[in-house]
Amino acid sequence: MRIAIDAMGGDHAPEAAVKGAQLAVDHYEDLLITLYGDEEKIKPYLNKHSRIKIHHTIEKVENTDEPSRVVRKKKNASMVLMAEAVKNKEADACISAGNTGALMSTGLFKVGRIKGIDRPALSPTLPTTDGKGFLLLDVGANVEAKPNHLLQYGIMGSIYVENVRDIKNPRVGLLNVGTEDQKGSELVKEAFKLLEQAPINFIGNVEARDLLEGAADVVVTDGFSGNIALKSIEGTALTLFTMLKQSFMKNTKTKIAAAMIKSDLKGIKNQLDYSEYGGAGLFGLSAPVIKAHGSSNERAIFNAIKQTYHLVDSDVVSLIEKEVSKLQGREA
Amino acid sequence: MRIAIDAMGGDHAPEAAVKGAQLAVDHYEDLLITLYGDEEKIKPYLNKHSRIKIHHTIEKVENTDEPSRVVRKKKNASMVLMAEAVKNKEADACISAGNTGALMSTGLFKVGRIKGIDRPALSPTLPTTDGKGFLLLDVGANVEAKPNHLLQYGIMGSIYVENVRDIKNPRVGLLNVGTEDQKGSELVKEAFKLLEQAPINFIGNVEARDLLEGAADVVVTDGFSGNIALKSIEGTALTLFTMLKQSFMKNTKTKIAAAMIKSDLKGIKNQLDYSEYGGAGLFGLSAPVIKAHGSSNERAIFNAIKQTYHLVDSDVVSLIEKEVSKLQGREA
Repeated sequence: MRIAIDAMGGDHAPEAAVKGAQLAVDHYEDLLITLYGDEEKIKPYLNKHSRIKIHHTIEKVENTDEPSRVVRKKKNASMVLMAEAVKNKEADACISAGNTGALMSTGLFKVGRIKGIDRPALSPTLPTTDGKGFLLLDVGANVEAKPNHLLQYGIMGSIYVENVRDIKNPRVGLLNVGTEDQKGSELVKEAFKLLEQAPINFIGNVEARDLLEGAADVVVTDGFSGNIALKSIEGTALTLFTMLKQSFMKNTKTKIAAAMIKSDLKGIKNQLDYSEYGGAGLFGLSAPVIKAHGSSNERAIFNAIKQTYHLVDSDVVSLIEKEVSKLQGREA
Repeated sequence: MRIAIDAMGGDHAPEAAVKGAQLAVDHYEDLLITLYGDEEKIKPYLNKHSRIKIHHTIEKVENTDEPSRVVRKKKNASMVLMAEAVKNKEADACISAGNTGALMSTGLFKVGRIKGIDRPALSPTLPTTDGKGFLLLDVGANVEAKPNHLLQYGIMGSIYVENVRDIKNPRVGLLNVGTEDQKGSELVKEAFKLLEQAPINFIGNVEARDLLEGAADVVVTDGFSGNIALKSIEGTALTLFTMLKQSFMKNTKTKIAAAMIKSDLKGIKNQLDYSEYGGAGLFGLSAPVIKAHGSSNERAIFNAIKQTYHLVDSDVVSLIEKEVSKLQGREA
């Protein structure tokens, strides 16, 4: 298996990408990795390895780059070349921790969509208290979703979770303002009807307040609401941990108490660390394109590579393709 | 001032409403309260007070009642009679901790809209780490918002926060998937242009992850996204506190540590307790209609009464009316 990695994306580039790649080739004997980026900057972190190659380029995508212009204006950026390798069948999948918008745009233009999928969905797995996690899609690839897009998200999400995350007959929920069937905007009411008919285990509406408790294995929503949900969850968790930290540093007594429960608190933090589940898939593209979190360290990159390996290995793209073509057959 | 209260709404009815009312009449000398509900159930909690009256009715709205049918089907419900008192000018404002949808519907049909406001907005104040809090609107009164509605929310929210919460020149932000001006759906792009022209301190887009850090004093969004944001924040905070509690109960060591920082943790919980800021206003109606949280205790009801008192006292409804009529003058 051949995975292309943008070594220059993310807060800890290229170190995290290089070291993560190294962990991965040690883990998978049949894995070949090509790192795209500045050779001079990559080499200091790379122990020579026969299954890691460098594709040298000094151009890279910045976080400030306008996503829609990257493909045309930065033809030699590490992210663009990585996606091109997938397009040219030189790689089976690709991973970047860089500019999310740019990756979505590059993925769409270079790798292209699966036939029958109207819009790809950015799909992270978020933590749940039971440790199973849930897939949330879309979190912002498409902010003007139509009911049919949400149907496709449900199908893609269900296939991914069943095949890559090994959850049998995954429960697919529709994010809504209440759990009753008739709730919500026209978009979700229409999507509800389509999802009910779909070949998935649709459990109806789920509310945002129940997500972390594991209300569903796959949660379908439009990119705008999904982005709000994701960032509200992230922001609240971060704020609470900051407040906890501050109150633990208040005086000697609190510092002693903090020392006593340090490992337990770290346990909670780990439980909520969603880099354990890999990166966010850009589902609906003709090959796996994975967005690793911008703050990914080597372990998070390694997890994203593992996830990508499973995605390619279980051939999720073909499974989606098949299911979607059946859907079109039924419509015709 | 005369405030009508639905004594039968909420998890702790009627005790919380009755005791909250008692605290309020002790606090405000010019306050008259009428409690709507079952006299038999109210009386055990009521110390005789010349400024608290009971309007007896045994009918009440249940959480399972279909909101749109309540006004017609439950004409004598405590919630409906309370709103009718406002309509008939027997009360200046009303408060219920009952069925949110039913209160929105009852408020709309009985109390009616301010001229020039297309849709009322359900508007809670959420906590921020600096203790100032921010007003989020709409969180679900209207799940199909148009750009013009968001403009009206911005104006109403700004007036409320400036006059009731005493924040001068409040910063109004638009909830979006990124902070750059051109981000988001067509709805928010159009709303952005309208808000820029409005007579408010519009600071542009804000992201969900920055809300609790106080990114803005007023955050404007459509009812669907606002509901998702509110419930994601609530759910995440609740989940984290549950996880903390569990890890504190694990063994003797963690229990000792927990005892040492109990008051500090309680401090964090209080800081995040948004009943301190009162209930959620249904802004855009011709008189203040306040939704207290379903789990309100007497203190939360007292806070909602205080908030309502300030709303009436500063005549926010007239101020909104004036500002909106100017807007219409400008459009004409």
